[in-house]
Amino acid sequence: MEELVGLREGSSGKPVTLQELWGPCPRVRGRIRCGLQWLKEKLFRVDEDWYFLAILGVLMALISYAMNFAIGRVVRAHQWLYGEIGDSHLLRYLSWTVYPVALLSFSSGFSQSITPFSAGSGLPELKTMLSGVILENYLDIKNFGAKVAGLSCTLATGSTIFLGKVGPFVHLSVMIAAYLGRVRTRTLGEPENKSKQNEMLVAAAAVGVATVFAAPFSGVLFSIEVMSSHFTVWDYWRGFFAATCGAFTFRLLAVFNSEQETITSIYKTSFPVDVPFDLPEIFFFVALGAICGVLSCVYLVCQRNFVGFIKTNRFTSKLLATSKPLYAALAALILASITYPPGVGRFMASRLSMGQHLVTLFDNNSWALMTRNSSPPWPAEPDPQNLWFEWYHPRFTIFGTLAFFLIMKFWMLILASTIPMPAGLFMPVFIMGAAIGRLLGEALSLAFPEGIVAGGVINPIMPGGYALAGAAAFSGAVTHTISTALLAFELTGQILHALPVLMAVLMANAVSQNCQPSFYNGTIMMKKLPYLPRIRGRKIGSYPVTVGHFMNCAITTLAKDAPLEQVVKVVTSTDEAQYPLVESTVSSEAREHPAPCLAHSRCPVN
Amino acid sequence: MEELVGLREGSSGKPVTLQELWGPCPRVRGRIRCGLQWLKEKLFRVDEDWYFLAILGVLMALISYAMNFAIGRVVRAHQWLYGEIGDSHLLRYLSWTVYPVALLSFSSGFSQSITPFSAGSGLPELKTMLSGVILENYLDIKNFGAKVAGLSCTLATGSTIFLGKVGPFVHLSVMIAAYLGRVRTRTLGEPENKSKQNEMLVAAAAVGVATVFAAPFSGVLFSIEVMSSHFTVWDYWRGFFAATCGAFTFRLLAVFNSEQETITSIYKTSFPVDVPFDLPEIFFFVALGAICGVLSCVYLVCQRNFVGFIKTNRFTSKLLATSKPLYAALAALILASITYPPGVGRFMASRLSMGQHLVTLFDNNSWALMTRNSSPPWPAEPDPQNLWFEWYHPRFTIFGTLAFFLIMKFWMLILASTIPMPAGLFMPVFIMGAAIGRLLGEALSLAFPEGIVAGGVINPIMPGGYALAGAAAFSGAVTHTISTALLAFELTGQILHALPVLMAVLMANAVSQNCQPSFYNGTIMMKKLPYLPRIRGRKIGSYPVTVGHFMNCAITTLAKDAPLEQVVKVVTSTDEAQYPLVESTVSSEAREHPAPCLAHSRCPVN
Repeated sequence: MEELVGLREGSSGKPVTLQELWGPCPRVRGRIRCGLQWLKEKLFRVDEDWYFLAILGVLMALISYAMNFAIGRVVRAHQWLYGEIGDSHLLRYLSWTVYPVALLSFSSGFSQSITPFSAGSGLPELKTMLSGVILENYLDIKNFGAKVAGLSCTLATGSTIFLGKVGPFVHLSVMIAAYLGRVRTRTLGEPENKSKQNEMLVAAAAVGVATVFAAPFSGVLFSIEVMSSHFTVWDYWRGFFAATCGAFTFRLLAVFNSEQETITSIYKTSFPVDVPFDLPEIFFFVALGAICGVLSCVYLVCQRNFVGFIKTNRFTSKLLATSKPLYAALAALILASITYPPGVGRFMASRLSMGQHLVTLFDNNSWALMTRNSSPPWPAEPDPQNLWFEWYHPRFTIFGTLAFFLIMKFWMLILASTIPMPAGLFMPVFIMGAAIGRLLGEALSLAFPEGIVAGGVINPIMPGGYALAGAAAFSGAVTHTISTALLAFELTGQILHALPVLMAVLMANAVSQNCQPSFYNGTIMMKKLPYLPRIRGRKIGSYPVTVGHFMNCAITTLAKDAPLEQVVKVVTSTDEAQYPLVESTVSSEAREHPAPCLAHSRCPVN
Repeated sequence: MEELVGLREGSSGKPVTLQELWGPCPRVRGRIRCGLQWLKEKLFRVDEDWYFLAILGVLMALISYAMNFAIGRVVRAHQWLYGEIGDSHLLRYLSWTVYPVALLSFSSGFSQSITPFSAGSGLPELKTMLSGVILENYLDIKNFGAKVAGLSCTLATGSTIFLGKVGPFVHLSVMIAAYLGRVRTRTLGEPENKSKQNEMLVAAAAVGVATVFAAPFSGVLFSIEVMSSHFTVWDYWRGFFAATCGAFTFRLLAVFNSEQETITSIYKTSFPVDVPFDLPEIFFFVALGAICGVLSCVYLVCQRNFVGFIKTNRFTSKLLATSKPLYAALAALILASITYPPGVGRFMASRLSMGQHLVTLFDNNSWALMTRNSSPPWPAEPDPQNLWFEWYHPRFTIFGTLAFFLIMKFWMLILASTIPMPAGLFMPVFIMGAAIGRLLGEALSLAFPEGIVAGGVINPIMPGGYALAGAAAFSGAVTHTISTALLAFELTGQILHALPVLMAVLMANAVSQNCQPSFYNGTIMMKKLPYLPRIRGRKIGSYPVTVGHFMNCAITTLAKDAPLEQVVKVVTSTDEAQYPLVESTVSSEAREHPAPCLAHSRCPVN
């Protein structure tokens, strides 16, 4: 005890103990201690939020990677089973369909039995929460297990059911952030801080996107665009930090697991650097944007109407209310039967996974030119070296397959999205956009087979660039975001098409934002959640709502000069308790034939 | 007249003239007219801001391109003169130095004679304006000519004076936006709308950055990070639209002028796609970020102190107050003499332009490895095929040249930034960062000459990747932004190094944001403009300001029990009009020796 006191006094220049004198270089040690103290203060003066954000990023990356790993195993087992089963058509059909049917009915039943909140993507609800509405228990950690298990089963069905991971993963990330926040509040005894919580939720959403695509930039921007209407630069820095931690850990795990040599983009492309596209092609890129915008509107309208139909139809609504797993199984059976490869599936590249869809669609070469003179037969097994053969069928050609893929996936995606289970729609929409772009690109490469002549060298038109632009534009139009363009670059590792892709995305957004609410806003409206109406512009005249739309026009009035019998007639003929009194019968009649006030019929029909 | 009336009536279903009946398909024509009417309404229902933004983008692109074009001609004339002048050292020296001296003294004299607002980058003042302060006449269109002429002259001096274009260009863009806004308000008779004006200014800032670098993404994000503390998604979309218009037009002009085959990135790189870097290299990237952060702090401190010294020093302050052109000429003479190629300039690649500096620094190959065994002589003329030879001197090696370049440019940039003329600091800082990165990269490639062995193939370490990361990290640390990482990718057209560069930038920002205000904030403080203090964190304890810092401690008090002579002594010894009255002499004395309240001295000195 004496010695301890002595030590403490020693450090303030008072009597020094022997022990202290014996230690080598007391001054240096003191300075080092002082330096460490300073460093500790510096590190802790930083809001401990940063540590929290790093933990969140790493945790979500681990979950994302573990989920991908498990899904990969299940998919491989399914492929093995399908390959080994022999030539019996019935057995092959069963092995192809039973898997997704079982997985989907389990996914739907399990997650719904635990909590109904786990269904769908979760992004619309998060958007509602960030605009200030409290959705009780929506971020409860209890939902976590249900959503993880359900999502894993959904994704393990691969391209058969054709659903994505982004939306639910953002929901999971936000759940974890809310949970960690509660834990911290409880352990540190801090008061609850609403604005701090919201900041964390935005950062967590960025982490969610970043750990799915390993794309920190677009993760941050996409989550901001989708979730908020305004934000602070402060949030944006936090989002970047957390998203970088997440994306880095996610890719690091892939390297550690020897899947990759080093950290690179997920769907690497190798477009030639010198002349990626010719100047006149810009026009086609913008046209592609407009096409994607129009198609996205069609998709959004169909999706909303079909969901409404499912809800109101007597048979389906009863099925959905009583036995969700059965509904999921039926839908899965339909979808799996259509994608059965020896059946119709061979015309829609159904043997490829969703990742392979993207990789093949971003291919440099023009398939139309490559198959113009030779027509390779449809391979019995997918050829790992030439995966794109899956998109080609001798009877249908490339164009037929791509168009068929688009048409079928269009309604299949809508059907799949009605199943009550955790599933995202971003990735399928992204792939459909890539297919739209590819279709246009292949057509152009066939129309201009001589390509671009630049500096004496002939550069053929690359349909892959159009696929990139189409993916960004269509997904951007459906979600009303611009950062999908950046996502396309981060996914592929090349940013050569920066301007044409950005122009396509802007064009697509201009079309779709004018005509339809975004997918997320549409879902919010369908679910009757509160939302902020869209600002169309500053001109009041641009709003199509007039007084006539929400005021009751069919009211009965009494005139001062009306004879008694008329008054009696009016009073007895209606149930109303109050009657407006007008000056004379004339003004009463004028009221009964008001000037037409419909805003929609501005253009005279002649 | 009769017929016209008939026509007009005809279109509303009333009597029809012969002419109308004769026209083919009246119904179809009517429908087309109706459709056009609808389209017109749609297009005009969109806020006309969009047209305004497009005009702004195109206009700024034209100005930027015209300026580049003119500067290019002047630089070529200078090179021609320098090359043709023969071997006389005096003449060559004169031809090398007179040009920048004349240009800079004209730039400084001309722009300062018109308006003092044209000096410097303008970004700090814009930041102040966006935080709500009104700086009278700062965005006056009269300043425009002065800034354009001054900036062109500054940039025409090339890498001799080593200054950039971004800051002044943002100022120009904002001036144009403010002018167009005033014109619109006057012609349309709209009331002034402050929030709308601010929106336009943010979008204009994005256009400014985008038309310099042809980088719409980073243009928007950089301007947001630098200029605002919070923003709406609405602004962000406008920024993207305007920036895309600007960047597209800017690159289009280059294609039309046959400078390029097609629209591509400005400083294209061709890093190999497969293994751009090995996993352990991530550590060096982060270390590079930390180095850049520390160096940026050193730079900011030196810069501030030197500017303060110039202002307080008797000789320089008098020179600056009376004859700015003379000061500019003297500074230019010093800078040009140092960069004179046959003199010291040969050790700092002074024959390259700033663009060539960047292109060479981003080179794939390792110069250290290439010059390890052979030592090519210093070429008499820059070799267009191997521009990087300029960075090599047989006596100094690559490392000596790079280090010398950095050390010299460090203080030369500080000196150049004190000249009162329109000039930006972003580009020079970006190049210095690239040199720092290159230095580390070359050292690493020499330390690990065997490179990365991946899949049996040896991939040498690429110093170009480090140059990219260094440029982004150093410029990000000086300006306190993260979007410089994105800028680096947009400039080079490859986004392979996304994660390591982002991590370097985050590290550099973590260091510099903790230690120093950003360059822009520092300038705001030096110019004594109002600014919002930085939010360090939520903990009150993290703020080092205490009451003792801003309250007057040296006050004289009167005690109730003080004798008369003491009161007289106190009252006559000071000039104050009021004296606080304290209970007794004891409490008065206690006040005179207050407890130490310095927050900085937390660590006891032992």
